[in-house]
Amino acid sequence: MIAAMSTPDLVAPGVFRLRCGTPEAITPIAVRRSQAKLPELEALPTAERAPFDAAQVQVRHGARGLVVTMPLRRGSGVFGLGLQLKSVLQTGKKKTLRTNADPVADTGDSHAPVPFWACSDGWAVLADTARYASLWIGTHATLAADDRSWRERVAAKNLPPSDRVEDLYRNAAVGERIVLEVPIAAGVDLYLFHGPTLLDAVRRYNLWSGGGVLPPIASLGTWYRAYTGFDQAEATACARALRADGMPIDVFGLEPGWQRSCYPNTFDWSPARFADPKGFLGEMRDLDLEVNLWENAYIHPDAPFAREIRPWCASETATDGLVPDFLTEQGTALFARHHAGLVAQGIGGFKLDECDNGDFNHPWSFPEWAEFPSGADGEQMHNLYGVHYQHAIDGMFRAAGKRHLSLVRASGALAAPLPFVLYSDLYEHRDFLRGVVTASFSGLLWTPEVRHADSLEDLVRRVQSVVLSPLALINAWYIRNPPWVHIEPKANNRGERMPQADRARGLVLAALRLRRRLQPYLYAAFARYAQDGTPPCRALALDHPDDPRSWAIDDQWMIGPDLLAAPLTAASPRRDVWLPAGGWRDFWTGEPIGGGRSFSVEPGLARVPLYVREGALLPLATPVERVTAGQGFEIVPVLYGDAVAHGALWDDDGVTPGASGRWLDLRWSRDGGLAGVPAASRLYRFAAPCAPSVALGDVAS
Amino acid sequence: MIAAMSTPDLVAPGVFRLRCGTPEAITPIAVRRSQAKLPELEALPTAERAPFDAAQVQVRHGARGLVVTMPLRRGSGVFGLGLQLKSVLQTGKKKTLRTNADPVADTGDSHAPVPFWACSDGWAVLADTARYASLWIGTHATLAADDRSWRERVAAKNLPPSDRVEDLYRNAAVGERIVLEVPIAAGVDLYLFHGPTLLDAVRRYNLWSGGGVLPPIASLGTWYRAYTGFDQAEATACARALRADGMPIDVFGLEPGWQRSCYPNTFDWSPARFADPKGFLGEMRDLDLEVNLWENAYIHPDAPFAREIRPWCASETATDGLVPDFLTEQGTALFARHHAGLVAQGIGGFKLDECDNGDFNHPWSFPEWAEFPSGADGEQMHNLYGVHYQHAIDGMFRAAGKRHLSLVRASGALAAPLPFVLYSDLYEHRDFLRGVVTASFSGLLWTPEVRHADSLEDLVRRVQSVVLSPLALINAWYIRNPPWVHIEPKANNRGERMPQADRARGLVLAALRLRRRLQPYLYAAFARYAQDGTPPCRALALDHPDDPRSWAIDDQWMIGPDLLAAPLTAASPRRDVWLPAGGWRDFWTGEPIGGGRSFSVEPGLARVPLYVREGALLPLATPVERVTAGQGFEIVPVLYGDAVAHGALWDDDGVTPGASGRWLDLRWSRDGGLAGVPAASRLYRFAAPCAPSVALGDVAS
Repeated sequence: MIAAMSTPDLVAPGVFRLRCGTPEAITPIAVRRSQAKLPELEALPTAERAPFDAAQVQVRHGARGLVVTMPLRRGSGVFGLGLQLKSVLQTGKKKTLRTNADPVADTGDSHAPVPFWACSDGWAVLADTARYASLWIGTHATLAADDRSWRERVAAKNLPPSDRVEDLYRNAAVGERIVLEVPIAAGVDLYLFHGPTLLDAVRRYNLWSGGGVLPPIASLGTWYRAYTGFDQAEATACARALRADGMPIDVFGLEPGWQRSCYPNTFDWSPARFADPKGFLGEMRDLDLEVNLWENAYIHPDAPFAREIRPWCASETATDGLVPDFLTEQGTALFARHHAGLVAQGIGGFKLDECDNGDFNHPWSFPEWAEFPSGADGEQMHNLYGVHYQHAIDGMFRAAGKRHLSLVRASGALAAPLPFVLYSDLYEHRDFLRGVVTASFSGLLWTPEVRHADSLEDLVRRVQSVVLSPLALINAWYIRNPPWVHIEPKANNRGERMPQADRARGLVLAALRLRRRLQPYLYAAFARYAQDGTPPCRALALDHPDDPRSWAIDDQWMIGPDLLAAPLTAASPRRDVWLPAGGWRDFWTGEPIGGGRSFSVEPGLARVPLYVREGALLPLATPVERVTAGQGFEIVPVLYGDAVAHGALWDDDGVTPGASGRWLDLRWSRDGGLAGVPAASRLYRFAAPCAPSVALGDVAS
Repeated sequence: MIAAMSTPDLVAPGVFRLRCGTPEAITPIAVRRSQAKLPELEALPTAERAPFDAAQVQVRHGARGLVVTMPLRRGSGVFGLGLQLKSVLQTGKKKTLRTNADPVADTGDSHAPVPFWACSDGWAVLADTARYASLWIGTHATLAADDRSWRERVAAKNLPPSDRVEDLYRNAAVGERIVLEVPIAAGVDLYLFHGPTLLDAVRRYNLWSGGGVLPPIASLGTWYRAYTGFDQAEATACARALRADGMPIDVFGLEPGWQRSCYPNTFDWSPARFADPKGFLGEMRDLDLEVNLWENAYIHPDAPFAREIRPWCASETATDGLVPDFLTEQGTALFARHHAGLVAQGIGGFKLDECDNGDFNHPWSFPEWAEFPSGADGEQMHNLYGVHYQHAIDGMFRAAGKRHLSLVRASGALAAPLPFVLYSDLYEHRDFLRGVVTASFSGLLWTPEVRHADSLEDLVRRVQSVVLSPLALINAWYIRNPPWVHIEPKANNRGERMPQADRARGLVLAALRLRRRLQPYLYAAFARYAQDGTPPCRALALDHPDDPRSWAIDDQWMIGPDLLAAPLTAASPRRDVWLPAGGWRDFWTGEPIGGGRSFSVEPGLARVPLYVREGALLPLATPVERVTAGQGFEIVPVLYGDAVAHGALWDDDGVTPGASGRWLDLRWSRDGGLAGVPAASRLYRFAAPCAPSVALGDVAS
């Protein structure tokens, strides 16, 4: 059956809606809680027409649901589909967008699948469905009507028999179409985002989603999550020891052990382990540490609000706990009200675990056949749960007038306005790097968190990666001592100190000091994210869609406007770096490097390869151990140009939602010196400009 | 909506049908091509009642399809669901049964998913659906009606906060139910198989499916698949070299290069590479080698039958080729007729590649939204394709009056009557071992094929495993020389010889000679499979369902009635072995070993741990290099009892379908010597009985 289709309607600047058939009642848009940022959308380059129109789309409705066929220009690159740990370039791939806690295969299973894809030709599409929709992106040619053109097409592939086994894979993507299959549904709305560039299309999606986000500046420092078995005294001792050791930590996370009961959760302090939460939180404040609490959403019979919330929970349990329906106002309000009490105590953020459909390996979640009071079924709820759990927590913070940055293990469509960073229980470093890249296409943030390590090199390379990501997280939840004391969990928990512990500490400290240096620059990158939708860390393809060499790069990314990261893994001390066209400089030395080419680097264990755009001024912070509220950052303008250099900082109070702020436009010239330094700033004070080798001499060993 | 349900109907001895709602038109049973083996079913132990009845089953029908809830006794073990490379014990797991060529996750994705599960309590269920059905096996408790029982259940888990991170996983399976979800369908038939034992339930399923199978005895020797780039002269030279080297090979496989065109296929000999197929096949016959041909089902425009078969093909292509609809008689007949020509030339079997939905990584298959002339959609067809592709080929062999053993990369429900062995492009040795175990619950056969290796140990341990599996396959398709010449593909193809090549050859030869020795014993195990449904290689749980220690064992299996294999991987020279209760003997030495316990062994690289039931007589063959048709095997009865020993052989002509045969019941006693040796046999002649150390002295180094 061919379903009816509208012409594309303009729903926001450069955003068009193409309605195919009759959509379901529960979709990301139907239950959205965020408003599009219309003024910011208006400020994007004009895009007056839809990337394609109804005549180029076929829609078929059958027993399995809806099949929508859309055009794709041969030779273009397609990206997105949410967090994809196994691939960045989606052309030639099939993906089924299923929330799954254990996404070890390149099938579309993801902590954060998003039915959103963006094309190098400068457009993007959001399919408004919460179903486990599938996409075939240029995989299949249409069956040729005549034998001659079919023969020619097959012959053009020039496949084996041949001597080269690799030739088999010349059977590559051939189809000039994207096919979307939405199970169950009799219709779906396609939201078409025009660019004109790939980055504009992604910015447009982010702004239309209601994002990006500006977290508190302190949350862009380094996080340390402490051992789950600690009691109050042990956790306090751990935090003090980190301070005594000179580690520049800013956020201190508690894992399941803080609660009276967990799996399912009571969401309150354990009287046995944390008898004096007020005292504990005061101590953390004195140490300049923000406290972040682990939880998942599943409710213990003894949770203070269990009885009240039960009517707003699913028909089935997860870890034997109630599953709150965050699509209902009442369930959300009851859940949020309890959490507001924790925020009033001084909690700065949460870590929302196990909201990502973790039932394949172990029963951690609710089944797809669960029924929810909102009318959603378990499948829809899985693809919406992360986002709406985030909204429950974030709405509560908003109501409390507080900015926060939190962690979450699931997300989905329209997540750009949510100040949450994704993480995973998986741990492949290479996949973790890819996550930074792929998340950036779909309004998501990702941290390649560091837990234990297989070697000193593995530890250092992982820490060097995470400090270049949206959230610098050391997650020591299963080790009593920091991983730089011992990388091996059992030995760590026995209190052993590895022979190379001193060297490890020094290398980790250097990386955390790099994070501190970058903190104001990152804050500016997030301010841009909030203001124009530009992802703070982003794939090279976003800035260079016309250069196909950028498309499949999955271990390099841009940070803000001027910095390019090319981290290493322990697999090799050497790696290839591709620099886009233009002039670049080595971050550490300022040495000029020509772009538009690949080259090999072997920087030594102490350095992570970083490149700065020629002519940039990086406003780096002096790497102090502690950032005390109200004291701010000393900025060292570091110059990556010989004659002129330019950079910017976002200056507000660093903590209040909607705080008034301003861009500090820092311009240096050889002749005129530094301009743009304000008379007074709440966040920054300024040192004299200097060369990279001077500013970074201490870590450039 | 609650769907209507019948009471269980008896459809065959011990097989009951429970109809839930209105099933779909295309299901494994609706399109089945094999007949149940009713006389053999009658011979199983009586099982007069269904394992559960309609009153214990709830059926709900909604927009997503059907949800069927069935009882599960707490503490019982559930197995099956087809080939599962990642887990054997399914209790506590969720699985979605989707055919997938790249099953790297424990999600139910499989080359051969089967909606069939068997319980340690002595029953099994086949859900008659070709959909990507999901199962939740004891994962979720029902939401407690009252807080008290809910609290008690949660408290009983005794979960953390605790100091032990492992305790988190105490959140184990708690549900006393199995939930089946069938998408799209408004009904499903459940076929309930009573045991009385787990093994009987599996036998019953196999016989009711129409199996098991008895392949030609020669196919139970060793297979060698040669480099895909070989032409006729090179392939012939390779086969001669194997013979000259004394390697006991019996089947010689050609990979894609034999065809004029492949991906998609012309299904005919390449005039450039194999100009004289008749000559080539004659040469192979002279070398006592059966020839097996690679193909997949997707049809090139220049295939001889392309134009004729096109009306019986899918609406979409795979690798740009036509996708024949094997659910149509016409499509099947046209495809089979062409293949009959190859069999008439002397081809002994086929390797059916890429029939397992390989689109996630690379477009190798047809999309789920494809439409087929039979009325099946792409989803149904994926879960049926392997089985019906096998039927197309197998039916052609049956019509030609020839037995065969073939390879296939996809299978499914009711596959027990199909003489095909599954393989995979994956290569984790540990997972490959698990495949032998899990396949045995669902009427499937699996080979942990050997390609290249990471080390000498890896090569030898892999070969030692594969010779103990249903099909001993060396698959050298991407290397020009056998892997024992060089384990590393690039060096192998450069013609290099690794330093340890002599040692490798010796160790591989010893393993292939072991295969030869076991060939008549394996043949008897297959004869049992055909006659009473007992899997020739099978999980220990099948014989010992009442001992939960057997349930999760995924690297040991029984071969026939008396032999237990416990192969090693290169990960360690040492492993733990669990022997079931009873008396056992070391295969190599005959030394008695008490069962019902675990112990550690470190047998050295030359030996694979094998154990023989106390009192067994193993009728081993003299390990000749070549088995010439009509010449048969010399049997050495090897005694694993001091006073008496007993074993059996199946004696027929070894090649003809339905050939008359008889069991040779070999009984030895210290007093009476050997009894049961026939006056004449077509397959066997007999040497004097002897002790293991005498018979196996040459390989026991």
